[in-house]
Amino acid sequence: MSADTPESDTKLNEEQAREQLIDLAADIYDQFERGDIPQMSLPTRTKSNIVFDEDSGVWVYGDRTSTRSANSVRGARKLLKAAYTVEFLAQQLDEDRSSTLRELYYLSESWDSEDAGFSDQDESNQLIEDLEIVSGVTREDFHMRPEESGATLMGPLELREQTRRGERDIHCQEDVGEGGYQIPNNPDTIEFLDHDIDFVLCVETGGMRDRLVENGFDTEYNCLVVHLKGQPARATRRITKRLHDELDLPVVVFTDGDPWSYRIFGSVAYGSIKSAHLSEYLATPEAEYVGIRPQDIVDYDLPTDPLADSDVNALESELEDPRFQTDFWEEQIELQLDIGKKAEQQALASQGLDFVTDEYLPTRLGEMGVL
Amino acid sequence: MSADTPESDTKLNEEQAREQLIDLAADIYDQFERGDIPQMSLPTRTKSNIVFDEDSGVWVYGDRTSTRSANSVRGARKLLKAAYTVEFLAQQLDEDRSSTLRELYYLSESWDSEDAGFSDQDESNQLIEDLEIVSGVTREDFHMRPEESGATLMGPLELREQTRRGERDIHCQEDVGEGGYQIPNNPDTIEFLDHDIDFVLCVETGGMRDRLVENGFDTEYNCLVVHLKGQPARATRRITKRLHDELDLPVVVFTDGDPWSYRIFGSVAYGSIKSAHLSEYLATPEAEYVGIRPQDIVDYDLPTDPLADSDVNALESELEDPRFQTDFWEEQIELQLDIGKKAEQQALASQGLDFVTDEYLPTRLGEMGVL
Repeated sequence: MSADTPESDTKLNEEQAREQLIDLAADIYDQFERGDIPQMSLPTRTKSNIVFDEDSGVWVYGDRTSTRSANSVRGARKLLKAAYTVEFLAQQLDEDRSSTLRELYYLSESWDSEDAGFSDQDESNQLIEDLEIVSGVTREDFHMRPEESGATLMGPLELREQTRRGERDIHCQEDVGEGGYQIPNNPDTIEFLDHDIDFVLCVETGGMRDRLVENGFDTEYNCLVVHLKGQPARATRRITKRLHDELDLPVVVFTDGDPWSYRIFGSVAYGSIKSAHLSEYLATPEAEYVGIRPQDIVDYDLPTDPLADSDVNALESELEDPRFQTDFWEEQIELQLDIGKKAEQQALASQGLDFVTDEYLPTRLGEMGVL
Repeated sequence: MSADTPESDTKLNEEQAREQLIDLAADIYDQFERGDIPQMSLPTRTKSNIVFDEDSGVWVYGDRTSTRSANSVRGARKLLKAAYTVEFLAQQLDEDRSSTLRELYYLSESWDSEDAGFSDQDESNQLIEDLEIVSGVTREDFHMRPEESGATLMGPLELREQTRRGERDIHCQEDVGEGGYQIPNNPDTIEFLDHDIDFVLCVETGGMRDRLVENGFDTEYNCLVVHLKGQPARATRRITKRLHDELDLPVVVFTDGDPWSYRIFGSVAYGSIKSAHLSEYLATPEAEYVGIRPQDIVDYDLPTDPLADSDVNALESELEDPRFQTDFWEEQIELQLDIGKKAEQQALASQGLDFVTDEYLPTRLGEMGVL
C-alpha cells in the first residue's frame, strides 16, 4: 500500500474512493491467502517525522513508518475494525449517503461482531485517518462529514454548489445576507463561476469579520473575506486552498497576535502534524501573515495582555517547530518573548473603529505587495 | 428610570433607542441639577430574584434592586463610564454604525478621560447589560453586535433581510447551499415573506443537523431546522421566538441527554438568569423538549457515558431551579440521577443512520401532538 498524498487539483471522485477502499480490503485478503500475517504500514505521525517537500512547498510525513499487524490480539482486532469500517464506507458511497465520525463510532455498536465495535471515538477517528493515509484519498471522498461546520465567505465571488437538492448558483455578496455564504461540509461540491477578487483575506474572529464587512472592505478592495472562526475547519482550509490554486489569488491571514493564533495561520499555510498526509489537499503554503504581529504591538502601541506561562511555552515550542523556522517568524516570536505581551485583532479599535480598514490593513497589505 | 422589558412584537427602532439613551443621560443631569447625588437603580440579577410572569409566561426579575451611586469614587467612576458609553452609543446610532462589546472595551482607551476607560471587558459588558435594563431596549437596538455569530436555518421559509447593501430575498431551501441560511447578528432585520412550515425544530449539534438535512427531514415533514450550535447565540434565540410568535408555529428542541443540554433547552424556552430582562424578547416559553430524554436512554437502550460528578451537581442544581420545576423535568432528572447515565443525540445512530428520522422523531413528535 502506498501513502500517496491526494491530488490537489482534482477531486478524486467517489468511485475512485470506493476502489481504493476495496483495494485495501483486497490487500489484506491477499496477505491472508499468501499465509502472511496481515499488516498495514503507516507513516509515523510525530513532529520529528515531518519533512518539507520542495515540490509542493508543504510539510509531509517523512520515511519513518509504524506497522499495524495482526500478530497480537490487539492488532488483529484493529484490522477487524478496519475491515468492518471499509465495508460500511463502501456501502455508504454506493448509496450516496454520508455520516459523521461520531455516527461511525455509535454505528459500530450495531455491527454483528462485538469485537468490531469501537471502544471510544478516538479509536474510530484514528482509523479514518489511517484509511485516508493508506488509500490516498480524503475522508470527504469517503463521505465522512466533519462535526464542525465550515465558516462563511463574503466577497465578489459567484459559485455553483452541487447539493442533494440540485444546483445552487450563489453570489457571495448579492445573494446572501450579512452573515455571508455558509461553506458546505465538502467544498469540492463547489464550482467557481465568476469573480472579481483581488485577494483572499482569512480572518480569525467573528467580531473582526463583521467589522470588515460593515466597513465595506470587501467591496472597496475587491477582497473575499473568509471567516476562519478560530482554528479553521477542514472545509474552510480546503476552499481557501482551492481559491488560491484555481483562481490564482493571493491569500493573507489576519489573526490575533498570540502563539495560538500563529498556529491558526500555520494550519492554513502549512497544514497540521495530525493531517500532514492532507497537506497537499488542505494547505496553502503561499499564504502570508498580515498580523497582528508583535511588531504591530510596538508600532501602534496596542492595548495588550501579558504573556501567560502557557503562551511563553507555546512560543518557545514554535521556535523549535520546523514550519516556523523562517526569518519572519523567528524575529517576531523573539520580539514577542522580549516584550512579554500579546494583543487581539480588535485591539486596533483603540485607535477608532475604522482604523483597521482605513489605515492598518491598507498599510500592511501595501508593505506585503498585495495592494 | 423604569426597568420595562422590551417590546416583544415590534422592534423598537434606532431612533427610540437613541431617545432612551439620551433620557438616561438627562436623568443623571437632572439629579445633578437638583443637588442629588446621581444614582441608577437596577434589579438584582441573581437566581433568587427571578419570578415567573404569568402574563408573558417567562421568568423576569423580581422586586429586589441594587443601586449604583456616585457617593463613592468607585461609584462615580461607574457613572462616568456610563456617560461616555451613552455618548458613544448615541453617536453610533446617529451614524448608522455598529460595534462589538470587545470593540467598545478597546475603544474606551481612546476616550479623552482616562478614568472613563474600562479596566476589563467584564466591566464594559456589564455596563451594556445595565443600559439594556434601565433603557428597556436591547443591545441590538444600540447596534452592539454579538461576538458569536448566529447559526443557520434550513426549511421551507422565504424571508427578506435588510442588509447594508440592500434587500435580499432568500428561500431557506432553494437559495442556499447545504450549509443553509446564516442568521445575521440582528435577526430583526428579517421579514418573513412566505412559508410552508408546520413546526420549528431546534437542534443542538452540527452532526445531527446535517443528518436531518441529508435525510430530507425538513422537506418530508415541512419543518424548519434551526441549528443551535451548542448554547444558542442571542440571534438564534431571537429568530426562534419570532418564528413562534409571528408565524404561530410550534417550536421543539432536540439536544443531547445531559444537564448542560437541558440548559440549552432552558435558554431557548425560559431565558437565562443573566438576561432575564430580555426574556420577553428572546425566550419562547411554549417551546417543548423532544429529547434526548433519560427515558429514551432506557427505552431505546442507547449507548451512554456514566454521569460525572459535575453532571450530578448540575442535575441537582436544575432540580432546585424554578424554571425546571415541572412534572416532566422532575421525573426525567430524577430518572437520570437514578440510572447514572447520559447519552448524545448521535447515539441514536447505534440503531442505524435513519433511525432518528424514520422512527425516533416521528414517534416522539406524534406523542407530543406536533405531528
